[in-house]
Amino acid sequence: MKSKEWITELLTAIDEELKKQVYRLPAGEMRDMLSYHLGWFGEGNSITAQGKRIRPLLTLLTCAGTGGNWQYALPAAAAVELVHNFSLIHDDIEDNSDLRRGRKTVWKLWGIAQAVNAGDLMFTLSRISLMDLSGSIPADRVLKAVSCLDHSCESLTYGQFLDLDYETRKQISIEDYWKMISGKTAALTSCSAKMGGLVSGVDQGRLGALAGYGQHLGLAFQVVDDWLGIWGDAVMIGKSTDSDLASGKKTLPVIFGLEKSGEFADMWQHGIGVPEASQALAGKLEALGAQEYTLQQAETHTQKALYMLEKAIPDPEILQILKDLTFDLLSRKK
Amino acid sequence: MKSKEWITELLTAIDEELKKQVYRLPAGEMRDMLSYHLGWFGEGNSITAQGKRIRPLLTLLTCAGTGGNWQYALPAAAAVELVHNFSLIHDDIEDNSDLRRGRKTVWKLWGIAQAVNAGDLMFTLSRISLMDLSGSIPADRVLKAVSCLDHSCESLTYGQFLDLDYETRKQISIEDYWKMISGKTAALTSCSAKMGGLVSGVDQGRLGALAGYGQHLGLAFQVVDDWLGIWGDAVMIGKSTDSDLASGKKTLPVIFGLEKSGEFADMWQHGIGVPEASQALAGKLEALGAQEYTLQQAETHTQKALYMLEKAIPDPEILQILKDLTFDLLSRKK
Repeated sequence: MKSKEWITELLTAIDEELKKQVYRLPAGEMRDMLSYHLGWFGEGNSITAQGKRIRPLLTLLTCAGTGGNWQYALPAAAAVELVHNFSLIHDDIEDNSDLRRGRKTVWKLWGIAQAVNAGDLMFTLSRISLMDLSGSIPADRVLKAVSCLDHSCESLTYGQFLDLDYETRKQISIEDYWKMISGKTAALTSCSAKMGGLVSGVDQGRLGALAGYGQHLGLAFQVVDDWLGIWGDAVMIGKSTDSDLASGKKTLPVIFGLEKSGEFADMWQHGIGVPEASQALAGKLEALGAQEYTLQQAETHTQKALYMLEKAIPDPEILQILKDLTFDLLSRKK
Repeated sequence: MKSKEWITELLTAIDEELKKQVYRLPAGEMRDMLSYHLGWFGEGNSITAQGKRIRPLLTLLTCAGTGGNWQYALPAAAAVELVHNFSLIHDDIEDNSDLRRGRKTVWKLWGIAQAVNAGDLMFTLSRISLMDLSGSIPADRVLKAVSCLDHSCESLTYGQFLDLDYETRKQISIEDYWKMISGKTAALTSCSAKMGGLVSGVDQGRLGALAGYGQHLGLAFQVVDDWLGIWGDAVMIGKSTDSDLASGKKTLPVIFGLEKSGEFADMWQHGIGVPEASQALAGKLEALGAQEYTLQQAETHTQKALYMLEKAIPDPEILQILKDLTFDLLSRKK
């Protein structure tokens, strides 16, 4: 019986694999920036500061769940986590964010120039990590893993381009939204799940199911995030400065509301930067059906993810672990 | 007899290969940023705005010169050029540069956020381009090419880290200088030359010679650039605002001067931002032997590059072309 201890074992192995890449670098400030961002070093370093490590966990679990040796998948697991973290370092610059996981962002501490470069290095390390697959799987399959990562990065940057672009655009449709989060969020979760199957060597059908699982998981994850940004505990119990409504973020419920009602559009525009207006705006969105629509979309993609997962994972025990993980992720309250 | 027309043919093929990658992207602003930077699009687009394309040319010539089909090497040639250009987009942000090849930089036109992301995309495209080698060479050799590019990018970002770091440091030794330009300039020229041999499939000895050729070429190139920044025609004939002495750049002659003479260090510090002081500073450096040292270093690395080249390239005709190219690059006056 696979236990909670087993997940802890996987997380420890992921951490060690990441450290293998980063601690290869010469000691000094460059390595410090990377270790700081990964939560190992500097003020506020802690398990929480390391992030949830969902993506590498997906890689190891889908590998083990399709009959592979999860240890062979460690270089791929580290690679997807490094890509995720490179994109966070750059996103924080692009979004002008001062805080990440409760700590100052890399650019806040080291300046934009060094932070852009540190992100580039983390991106590079993800590729170097992936090359370590060569020890355990044939070259043509390593190339498929490389290609999977490359294409997810292309989608990631395209999604980020759209996200930045939408900030300055007046009209965003719900279709635009899906295009953006497909790139920004779902492409890498899809690749993370597929990686496990590439390492274990499953057939094309199962690979497709794994990729589909990761894709819908990513979409559902983002939609839940958008819901939490307006109706989550943190926002509703007093801290309305954290509301996506106060920051003017164009999340799914907001885009839904903007499409439905000119009156909401006016209210929303005036409510940016005014935390006291958030509760009324949230109420208006509820009345328009935006909350219901958002929750229903989260549910649809969760169901699709679970359906794909059933098709992808033959091992019943690991299937259950992945179902639980999926459920935990998509029913979180913060 | 290989003619000038042949080089033009290679350059045209490089351009087409680059366009193949970039024009795969959906039409729109994101693609525009990349095409703008590559000199194909927007104000001031021209052959000059496209850059010299030295790195991809090295790849094709070293491939053909070691008995390979240069057309097979096109994906690798495009990859090294895309890496070079991704690093320029990010360097311009990091160095706060408004102009590149006489035109506004990407971040000046589209802002820092979009420019960081455009650089990330160009980086990704370089990897995707490289994967196209799979059509013509075996998977294990493609992996070697991927690894070559990855490690050159690691060195590149390390070199850039040092360059940014040196700006704020008081004491820089000549040893520090070599470490920095080995990463920032020579790692990618080395990889570019080696790529050709990886595609043609030469033995380890020749691969080493190709890498060594590219490495010394890169070092010599940077040293010549540093010499030009103080004693080049553009600087000496009136435009002393362009002098590296006025901008306070810590180039090889300056580091030499700072190591040798406290008096020069004082003069130099006071001459930053004062173009009228540049001529006197250049004279002082000459008197200290900095010009002689710089030229001698350029000569040493040029000779080492040519020695490696002879060992690497069996085809006499292409050897001559590469020698000419090396000579042209290293005896340029601007």
